[in-house]
Amino acid sequence: MQLPSFFTEFQQATDTELRRLVPDSGDPVQRSMAYTVLAPAKRVRPVLTLLCAQLCGGTIARGLPAAATVELIHASSLILDDLPSMDDAALRRGRATNHKVCGEAIAILAAFALLNLSFGTIAKAYDPDLAARLTALLSGAVGTDGLIGGQAADLLATDQVIGFEMLERIHRGKTGALFVAAAASGALTAGAPPDSVASLTAYAKNLGLAFQIIDDLLDVEGNPAETGKDVKEDVRKTTFVSFSGVDGARQLARELCDTADRALQPFGRRADRLRELSVFVARRSL
Amino acid sequence: MQLPSFFTEFQQATDTELRRLVPDSGDPVQRSMAYTVLAPAKRVRPVLTLLCAQLCGGTIARGLPAAATVELIHASSLILDDLPSMDDAALRRGRATNHKVCGEAIAILAAFALLNLSFGTIAKAYDPDLAARLTALLSGAVGTDGLIGGQAADLLATDQVIGFEMLERIHRGKTGALFVAAAASGALTAGAPPDSVASLTAYAKNLGLAFQIIDDLLDVEGNPAETGKDVKEDVRKTTFVSFSGVDGARQLARELCDTADRALQPFGRRADRLRELSVFVARRSL
Repeated sequence: MQLPSFFTEFQQATDTELRRLVPDSGDPVQRSMAYTVLAPAKRVRPVLTLLCAQLCGGTIARGLPAAATVELIHASSLILDDLPSMDDAALRRGRATNHKVCGEAIAILAAFALLNLSFGTIAKAYDPDLAARLTALLSGAVGTDGLIGGQAADLLATDQVIGFEMLERIHRGKTGALFVAAAASGALTAGAPPDSVASLTAYAKNLGLAFQIIDDLLDVEGNPAETGKDVKEDVRKTTFVSFSGVDGARQLARELCDTADRALQPFGRRADRLRELSVFVARRSL
Repeated sequence: MQLPSFFTEFQQATDTELRRLVPDSGDPVQRSMAYTVLAPAKRVRPVLTLLCAQLCGGTIARGLPAAATVELIHASSLILDDLPSMDDAALRRGRATNHKVCGEAIAILAAFALLNLSFGTIAKAYDPDLAARLTALLSGAVGTDGLIGGQAADLLATDQVIGFEMLERIHRGKTGALFVAAAASGALTAGAPPDSVASLTAYAKNLGLAFQIIDDLLDVEGNPAETGKDVKEDVRKTTFVSFSGVDGARQLARELCDTADRALQPFGRRADRLRELSVFVARRSL
């Protein structure tokens, strides 16, 4: 599907900021960081950050370091997810995974360095008050109640029979937590009031889960040329598709996008771009 | 050798703070974090933080979150160093290494979570101005110019012939950077002026390198019951001992401790506890 023009504009702004933050220098760890961060990608999370910043009256320039930081954290988590001891994946974003190209040790250090750079970037880019709030927000999203907790639960669930509640818990951690942090950090860079942050948090929480369900559908239905991943590499895991079937999963994703959109009501028409984003997430084939 | 009483007092304060920050809960990642963080250890870095805080007129209570944070980062780096793809070590601090007990995937997530918790702890414990300064300081110490850069250089040097300059660069990254951050963060929590921070940075830089050289000596001369590590597991690497011999390395460590002590001159007798710390580092057999 055709991307809205704001989407490509925000993608490009993010890419420029990421190239500044992670120069592809001769250093092996920097090169490994750049390999994953600068690979062509949708940039859904940073686009979400920038949309929320804009909706709350902020500028793109001010939202950009937070947007890029969210993508640094995402890239870091992708490198970890693909490691031999985790999902042992060979293909990501249409290319060999980081550890296949850079070696496992350097890949782990690069993932580590990306998380570290995230916090360093926030501390440098923002005034201390905002930096402290963003640091607490991002640290919470990454920690054992967020990304890391979700990834651990996912690992422990491999080859296990799990219920829908656990499946949802895994993906609220693995995907939802960073979507929420992306939206809330954008709002915070614009100085948004707490009720706006809360509405955007509710939106992002549901959008993130819908995004994950579509990911599961693409793993089953997509072809590697489009998804950039091996088909069905998640076959040892319970997914939303294995749980609810293709039609059920598709229905669930639509419902979550509707729930996400309802959280935007307080913003009226001003949130139309976020509604376009949910349409993109619900319909994407890439 | 007998530890000075301030040393054991500061160790205990650090241990208490670490138990608060990393409760050994039922969660597998938390348990893995606690396994390494709460293992009996010297706590040299947090003791250094607290001594610098005290020397600059600060309180232990105010220095403690920074001290514990430095130890969280240190523990995180130990888990990584021991991984199969890095040093592939079986023994650490007298016990099986983290990945041997918790599995490689959970160990990597725990290392990640510890770094993440470090920044979260700083953001919560301090006023925004100090938190932003400490975050920038710690992020610099961990990054590709610090811990991570040193570890990468160390990996690339394995089985290679390297010169003294490269050996020093590796350990200024792997050990020196966090010693410097430990000292400077303690000084910053006390609101120390820039010249005091600079003096303590010079002290810590040399002390850290001396500490590493003694570590190399213990790997050759120590027995596992005392060092808690396998003897000579670093045999594939150039060390200060393989480079300068036992006597040469011992001499170099003494000189570095003397250089460290000279940086304390501006503080006069008030810095005597830091001088005791260098004596401990130079003479330690544990």
